[in-house]
Amino acid sequence: MSNVTTRFFHTGSATDPIRLRDGGEMEEVTLAYETWGELNEDRSNAILLFHALSGSHHAAGFNPDIEAINGIWQPELHEGWWSDMIGPGLALDTNRYFIICANYLGGCYGSSGPASLDPETGKPWGSRFPHVTAADQVEIQARLLDDFGIGKLVAVIGPSVGGLLALAFATRFPHRVANVVSIASGYKTTVLNRLVLFEQILAIENDPNFNGGDYYEGAPPLYGLALARMISHKTFVHLDAIERRARQDVVQPDDVLAWYRVRDQFQSYMLHQGKKFVKRFDANTYLRINDMWSRFDGAQEGDAGSPEDLFARVKDAGQKWLVFSIDSDFCFYPEEQTELVTHLEKAKVDVMHITVHSDKGHDSFLLEPNLYTPHIAWVLGRA
Amino acid sequence: MSNVTTRFFHTGSATDPIRLRDGGEMEEVTLAYETWGELNEDRSNAILLFHALSGSHHAAGFNPDIEAINGIWQPELHEGWWSDMIGPGLALDTNRYFIICANYLGGCYGSSGPASLDPETGKPWGSRFPHVTAADQVEIQARLLDDFGIGKLVAVIGPSVGGLLALAFATRFPHRVANVVSIASGYKTTVLNRLVLFEQILAIENDPNFNGGDYYEGAPPLYGLALARMISHKTFVHLDAIERRARQDVVQPDDVLAWYRVRDQFQSYMLHQGKKFVKRFDANTYLRINDMWSRFDGAQEGDAGSPEDLFARVKDAGQKWLVFSIDSDFCFYPEEQTELVTHLEKAKVDVMHITVHSDKGHDSFLLEPNLYTPHIAWVLGRA
Repeated sequence: MSNVTTRFFHTGSATDPIRLRDGGEMEEVTLAYETWGELNEDRSNAILLFHALSGSHHAAGFNPDIEAINGIWQPELHEGWWSDMIGPGLALDTNRYFIICANYLGGCYGSSGPASLDPETGKPWGSRFPHVTAADQVEIQARLLDDFGIGKLVAVIGPSVGGLLALAFATRFPHRVANVVSIASGYKTTVLNRLVLFEQILAIENDPNFNGGDYYEGAPPLYGLALARMISHKTFVHLDAIERRARQDVVQPDDVLAWYRVRDQFQSYMLHQGKKFVKRFDANTYLRINDMWSRFDGAQEGDAGSPEDLFARVKDAGQKWLVFSIDSDFCFYPEEQTELVTHLEKAKVDVMHITVHSDKGHDSFLLEPNLYTPHIAWVLGRA
Repeated sequence: MSNVTTRFFHTGSATDPIRLRDGGEMEEVTLAYETWGELNEDRSNAILLFHALSGSHHAAGFNPDIEAINGIWQPELHEGWWSDMIGPGLALDTNRYFIICANYLGGCYGSSGPASLDPETGKPWGSRFPHVTAADQVEIQARLLDDFGIGKLVAVIGPSVGGLLALAFATRFPHRVANVVSIASGYKTTVLNRLVLFEQILAIENDPNFNGGDYYEGAPPLYGLALARMISHKTFVHLDAIERRARQDVVQPDDVLAWYRVRDQFQSYMLHQGKKFVKRFDANTYLRINDMWSRFDGAQEGDAGSPEDLFARVKDAGQKWLVFSIDSDFCFYPEEQTELVTHLEKAKVDVMHITVHSDKGHDSFLLEPNLYTPHIAWVLGRA
């Protein structure tokens, strides 16, 4: 696909600031976003896509440059993460639909985030950048839709953490959504999710350079973020694949830590994954999104008293849901999608639950478009 | 049981130093150990027990004090970790057997370790304390047996990492062992083991206070060690149990990290586990034992060309093996014991493989003596 340009949406003002659910307040917020396809005349063909934790709004096509984010936009990001899914005749068919994807608030790819300048001080927000919740995210993205004049969406779609936001959007704005596609995601964080996320928070917090998040004038907490990435990496990628890839890796001569010497290709590979990641991501953003995920609870994000109350809205609005599980997923386990589907079925929502069989683990949604395309295309075509 | 006293065994000298497999050398090594029961006249009733990663040689009875290790001998350690298994009429029957357990070389409970004074400098070894392997450990413990004049053992027994050492002992000294009892252990570290262990190494290495391991004159790397413990804790304790225990916990007012504020009982409980652990363990010891475990490979530790070569010795010596699996074990997965048993069966070794069903995860071996006692007592009684 041809080049895509990131655009920027600004919302909020001194007299009408953005108020976040945790008490944080920001005068103005910027969302970086991209679109694919054309919005039709009655603005009825839009799809809102949410990206994963460490993903970006650049879902398809080629984008070699994003204004003002310098070094962090590494070459590996230039090709969109779902280029095989978005385009003419693809799952999200750009001949028919207008697709929007925005970088999360708190992100590091152009939306307002901890590395952005706080207009009050002229310095990066750092530690002062507020906590954000999934509900905050979807409220801000609804403003972006308003700006386009889009009322009802053909669909909200999200893989992984993006699926949590799709759920939050669909339940906070039930009448703005016809279809929901939730891929390898869930309804509420599990004990295991929270443990693994908390480990990652501590890994960053304990880095000698972290300084509470105010590290932009010095060295960033690279090893802490690399460790966090390594902890999560084993949940994204199937262990067999890690082992296979590691065998092709060579032990780097610089893989010496303070005391420990990296012993094998396997440790070297993991460390390499971590070091590669820190070049393209900001630790403060990682903490914000990690925190958002860690306390995700569908009912809470939707201000509902119970799952029953929450999904009653979905039923009333006549939404249709498509939920994907990946059988080898160790990040969002299949049990988590089962929990979501059980709530939907109880509420008598029209739901299809599909398990794809893959040896690629959680990352399958990025790597195997053919496992997802037919059902997504069919569901959207029905709309 | 009554009070037990830790004793100390010294070996090596300036003219005959201890040479470790990684090239390290120590003039003298001390092993802290305890014994239970009486050694009979022909010294034929001895059992050698190996402790787990963060355990100690104090396996049974009450020991309120160990010479020269000060604050680290916390009250929670005073009661032996296997007091329900060692005693008159118990699984390891002290009316019949003489049981020995020694703290690992590199340990922090009285054996020579990174916190011990290097006689050359008069300061703690710290970063200069050598790497140790499982083969090193069992060679040193064999010297302790020699000192007692013990030739052939009734059994070597070890749970968890202790099971790896039992395997190393039994294969390096096949004719000194009649029975081997390996509980929730394995034959060779898996990819997942190594990943989780490497994360823990990095957590400690990246602590602002680590200083390559030379932290004894300043603040120790507490948060790094606490994070390492948290990472491992979820593999020891079944997640349901973690959740149950966490519900009884209260969020501590001091649970504030640099930026992140602990949100719930669950995170608070995990942090509390980590903080409790750092009071009773040394980060440098944790690194040494973790490293030893991380690269454990039965054949390598036994200087054998293959598993076949290794277990041929075991068969020749007429050893009998008892291998326990715990069905809910997320630390040493049941597949790991299956691998070990497969090697033993191929070599036509007399082996019993028992799976105990428990909801307690890996820690079951500490908590549920009745699941292990009958088979162990039966196997030893047969000897």
